Amino acid sequence: MQQDIFLVGSGLTRFGEWWDKSLRDLMREAIEAALESSGLQAQDVDLIIVANMLAEVTNNQAHMAALASSLLPHHPPALRVEAACGSGALAVNTACAFLESGRAKTVLVVGVEKMTDASADAISQALMGAADSELDAPSGLTFPGIFGLIAKRYMYEFGLTREQLSIVSSVHHKHATENAFAQFRYELSPEAVSASPLVSDPLRLFDCSPISDGAAACVLSTVHRSGMRLAASQIASDTLSITQRPTIVSFPATRAAMELALCEADITRKDIHALETHDCFSIAAVINMEDLGFAKEGEGIRIYEDLHAGHAPMFVNMGGGLKACGHPVAATGIKQLIDVSKSLTRGRARYGLAHNFGGAGATCGIHVLENTHV
Amino acid sequence: MQQDIFLVGSGLTRFGEWWDKSLRDLMREAIEAALESSGLQAQDVDLIIVANMLAEVTNNQAHMAALASSLLPHHPPALRVEAACGSGALAVNTACAFLESGRAKTVLVVGVEKMTDASADAISQALMGAADSELDAPSGLTFPGIFGLIAKRYMYEFGLTREQLSIVSSVHHKHATENAFAQFRYELSPEAVSASPLVSDPLRLFDCSPISDGAAACVLSTVHRSGMRLAASQIASDTLSITQRPTIVSFPATRAAMELALCEADITRKDIHALETHDCFSIAAVINMEDLGFAKEGEGIRIYEDLHAGHAPMFVNMGGGLKACGHPVAATGIKQLIDVSKSLTRGRARYGLAHNFGGAGATCGIHVLENTHV
Repeated sequence: MQQDIFLVGSGLTRFGEWWDKSLRDLMREAIEAALESSGLQAQDVDLIIVANMLAEVTNNQAHMAALASSLLPHHPPALRVEAACGSGALAVNTACAFLESGRAKTVLVVGVEKMTDASADAISQALMGAADSELDAPSGLTFPGIFGLIAKRYMYEFGLTREQLSIVSSVHHKHATENAFAQFRYELSPEAVSASPLVSDPLRLFDCSPISDGAAACVLSTVHRSGMRLAASQIASDTLSITQRPTIVSFPATRAAMELALCEADITRKDIHALETHDCFSIAAVINMEDLGFAKEGEGIRIYEDLHAGHAPMFVNMGGGLKACGHPVAATGIKQLIDVSKSLTRGRARYGLAHNFGGAGATCGIHVLENTHV
Repeated sequence: MQQDIFLVGSGLTRFGEWWDKSLRDLMREAIEAALESSGLQAQDVDLIIVANMLAEVTNNQAHMAALASSLLPHHPPALRVEAACGSGALAVNTACAFLESGRAKTVLVVGVEKMTDASADAISQALMGAADSELDAPSGLTFPGIFGLIAKRYMYEFGLTREQLSIVSSVHHKHATENAFAQFRYELSPEAVSASPLVSDPLRLFDCSPISDGAAACVLSTVHRSGMRLAASQIASDTLSITQRPTIVSFPATRAAMELALCEADITRKDIHALETHDCFSIAAVINMEDLGFAKEGEGIRIYEDLHAGHAPMFVNMGGGLKACGHPVAATGIKQLIDVSKSLTRGRARYGLAHNFGGAGATCGIHVLENTHV
């Protein structure tokens, strides 16, 4: 980092189905909570960055940045950043650039999505916008379809079983029971995951993160301080289409961003005690553990087996991950950062990492947070 | 500017109707032209910023950043910036932040839009996403409707006549005749503008910028140099909805961004010899002259009367503006910067200014370019 950037405030709506709240309502709720927790006034915000993927399709609302600016009395400059489900982390990375450049001293980043007003068909089609509309979509693939292919291939290459995979969502649901902001606050046995309806072989309903409404906001500053310092902010890209990649059982953008992030934070993986990783589908969480370097190739499930057995080496998706906390896509990357800060505070741990990606890993954003009180 | 940033290359597709080219094709064409004109290799690009507003609706394609990254062999990190029709300038401003922060040394900014595949109804509705979907759209307003109201009120307050207003598009069409990249390369008399079909009283068809496909790309760098230096990059926001503003005949975001830009460039208005301003509708160009401070309140048309008479104080929309060059919305802000650089080179002038806004002026981005060879 070129400068010390602190996470000075954060706010969330509960993720879920909010038919009675608009995009404006959801943003306002998260922003007010973030400002209140920061102790700052709205006027202290120099710049707003909105992360949003779907509002143009779901709510006929582009220009979300000006909508967010309208919510603050001084209408600060604002822009929207989008990188599909990775929009949240990309927005935080963009905030870092503005802060380090000196163009802003305090940036409000807010991610929001309102997905449940649309039909399942419409939202499924809109989400396919995160893949390549020329090379992936014409085959009839949906995102569960893409990750079903990935899971099938992964099982073929590494022998992962259906029973093992079911542990992932079970762990996430257990964690969500203690998260007041989670969409699903109930436990789910691995057997229940395995018995849930088939969506895209071998993926079943409970392997898939849900359709969610919600917002997450954070205040980042170089002039106001807190105990939570950003130690790294890195992004990487890959081909948009899975058809242009040599393998589908690993996401090179995660690997690239992770190496850059560790280098920027000047730490090793052993220093990381809290991790939020992008489990849009259960198989993604398994692969992520390998791409992030916490497990060897083919062994990502072991971390979830350890978590399930209650002896994990670190906190993982303590808020319930995308599966159980919910996945209002562009809000997720910001929520992850907030959840990492909560894990670090509760666990009195020093370093935590938030790993967010878009599409089938075509964009990845990684943030390392340091609890300076430890 | 925290650092010297140079415009080292630029590329355009012709704006128009490109039914046989995809978003990928249009971006590739502009990017290749920009890289070629820069003399750099693709691998010199550290970061891509894509400006796009409508692809999610028109092409079911979000995640445009990863699509752009796919076009370069090393898949550099990439993000998308959106602020409706102001997306281009906001993307350039974001590039400046990344460059000044040191996170990137050479940034490729590409704006693209593919609007003509959609029906007129569909594209009109999609463009209304640039206004407030809760406060503006439910009244049945379209963008011609919004600017029709603005024109009506402006005429009432300042006595502008229909005949005077028709000069604006006539001037722009005359300029476009010499622009190989323009959508409409023919002259249009003020009388023809006045006689064109009524769209939204008092605005007629030839008061309105067209629906366009096209892409514009530029390469900005702190390590590679050229004779074109960015002297200022500023953005500002206003309420998204026109219902929340004290007046509709002035856009405060333009005024705010202009003051900041002059201050950053350390120049006065008299130093500016080339201007590209956002004439989404003819009335906008008139108001912009006042908001930018080149004319007094109610007298913006005088500059166009001077241009029409052939004795203008500066180059204005020499590529034809949005009306005649075309308006693939997110490409426009980048095209403006390129057109300013062309005017400065041809006119051997030192300073030029690009003024781009989104929606009804809810977001504004202003860039000042300095021709260091003068």
